[in-house]
Amino acid sequence: MGVVRTIDWQDHHIVAIDQTKLPSEVIILEILTVEDLVAAIQRLAIRGAPALGVAGALGAAMAVRDEPSQRERDLAALRNARPTAVNLAWGVDRVLAKLPEGVDAVLAAALDLLESDAARNRALGDRGAEWLAQQVSGPIAVQTHCNAGALACVEWGTALGVVRSLHERKLLRHVYVDETRPLLQGARLTTWELAGMGVDHTLVVDSAGATVLARGLANAVVVGADRITANGDVVNKVGTYPLALAAARAGVPFLVAAPESTIDPALTAGADVEIEVRDGREILGDLPATQTLNLAFDVTPADLVTAIVTEDRLVRPALGERPA
Amino acid sequence: MGVVRTIDWQDHHIVAIDQTKLPSEVIILEILTVEDLVAAIQRLAIRGAPALGVAGALGAAMAVRDEPSQRERDLAALRNARPTAVNLAWGVDRVLAKLPEGVDAVLAAALDLLESDAARNRALGDRGAEWLAQQVSGPIAVQTHCNAGALACVEWGTALGVVRSLHERKLLRHVYVDETRPLLQGARLTTWELAGMGVDHTLVVDSAGATVLARGLANAVVVGADRITANGDVVNKVGTYPLALAAARAGVPFLVAAPESTIDPALTAGADVEIEVRDGREILGDLPATQTLNLAFDVTPADLVTAIVTEDRLVRPALGERPA
Repeated sequence: MGVVRTIDWQDHHIVAIDQTKLPSEVIILEILTVEDLVAAIQRLAIRGAPALGVAGALGAAMAVRDEPSQRERDLAALRNARPTAVNLAWGVDRVLAKLPEGVDAVLAAALDLLESDAARNRALGDRGAEWLAQQVSGPIAVQTHCNAGALACVEWGTALGVVRSLHERKLLRHVYVDETRPLLQGARLTTWELAGMGVDHTLVVDSAGATVLARGLANAVVVGADRITANGDVVNKVGTYPLALAAARAGVPFLVAAPESTIDPALTAGADVEIEVRDGREILGDLPATQTLNLAFDVTPADLVTAIVTEDRLVRPALGERPA
Repeated sequence: MGVVRTIDWQDHHIVAIDQTKLPSEVIILEILTVEDLVAAIQRLAIRGAPALGVAGALGAAMAVRDEPSQRERDLAALRNARPTAVNLAWGVDRVLAKLPEGVDAVLAAALDLLESDAARNRALGDRGAEWLAQQVSGPIAVQTHCNAGALACVEWGTALGVVRSLHERKLLRHVYVDETRPLLQGARLTTWELAGMGVDHTLVVDSAGATVLARGLANAVVVGADRITANGDVVNKVGTYPLALAAARAGVPFLVAAPESTIDPALTAGADVEIEVRDGREILGDLPATQTLNLAFDVTPADLVTAIVTEDRLVRPALGERPA
């Protein structure tokens, strides 16, 4: 397996890998309507902040082909399909700005986002790898959480883009992967991508990540982000915050890899971000009904974030630098 | 459901609840040989540090009935059935000290441990509840991890003994339960016990525990322990350490509830404790084979442990007090 194209545009519609079926099956979804796209996003068949940005853009390009009342309903449903990642609404709004130039201009803008995703990720991956090589002496062993790989983007990846760049430079020793309950994006998706890249890796339960750092098995944490607020707080998959606490205690750099579109200058701090609460059945499986709180994301305070790397720059919130 | 007797002695043999079958089935195991007891301990049908202490004592009482060469093999297998909890070998050795007085004296000592377990847990539960009531103003919402309840003991519980005492005093608002991957002792066992006690509770994935504390949903952490070293480091189910980091950051008390038998004066610090690594298939389930590191326990450094409560005393490692 080489680099995966997770979402694409073919014959006037969206095609995407169904991420709920991996790793046992690689099924390609043909998405012909905005309604189907919203459903695919809500059941996490399409997921990952950068991929959601592209999905928002391509979905808007589909919506503008409809008559106005349907168009408005579709755009609202698309913007609100999931609340936490800023990229979704960002993708919609960015291409809609071209609507005065016509529906073809909207599609052209969406295709430009799609095609430029890999280049953005490659740029941030290279910048992150170079920075980590300065911070850590010797080969780098990375702890990561969830999936911020090619499957979370169009291709290449953000956190796994950094891993990929380290691997190309022969600076990577190992990757420790948190399984990422309840939906196991780490165990299902990240291990699948790393195996395809030929990267040595080890799967641990989420609550063992802190011990991997305390024992010095990993000497860097690299994760993605769903929204970064102006002060440098990072909203990402639940379980990121305890890893950041453990990294700080172990004196290990905590690097967030995300495109500029993940930074939301409109929100001051992480406490202002709406955190999605999902259905408790994702946790319970076939266990008896019990009250649950299925928080999909958490907030890592800026002082624990050693650096944020984007396609354009590196910001160090722990030193007081602000991304916006 | 009232208080559960998890392990007991009837008609010259051990009876125990099979904890791997809960909550869907309550199956009572009849254990007639030390070999069967060791197998039950290794597959976690019997688990929890205090219950393992009693199992070690009752198992030794069974072993001394055998001829000497079989006796030595049985005692060695029993002592080494699992490496991390100190209570197992402690239970064996404590009752074997009576062997010069005859095999009946060994059994009498084992039955004394069995019968006194609930009283010890009630004493530590009451002490822990009184201390928490001094630390926290208003009703107490507890975050706990794994199962340190009646099912980890003979009856009553350690961490859940504190919860039970708070509930009796009408000081308990809520309990947040980590599911505790990979074997889900929190989701399967702790929720079952709390439902039986009539305690309001909410299940979260392990990696959400830190957010429960950061948001102030819980204002105390109460956990058990498998071994406590002389300096106050606490070895407990993997996932305890990141909760302790999050409690310290949130300014919330982190209370460890355990009998005196859990304290190991022979070991200086947590780094000296052998941490059990279990079969990776417990994590993988039906996912494709991947390298795993299935650490069963972690080490919480003494400076993060606000207090340890036992049947005899309260020790505050974070203030520099040493349990041994």
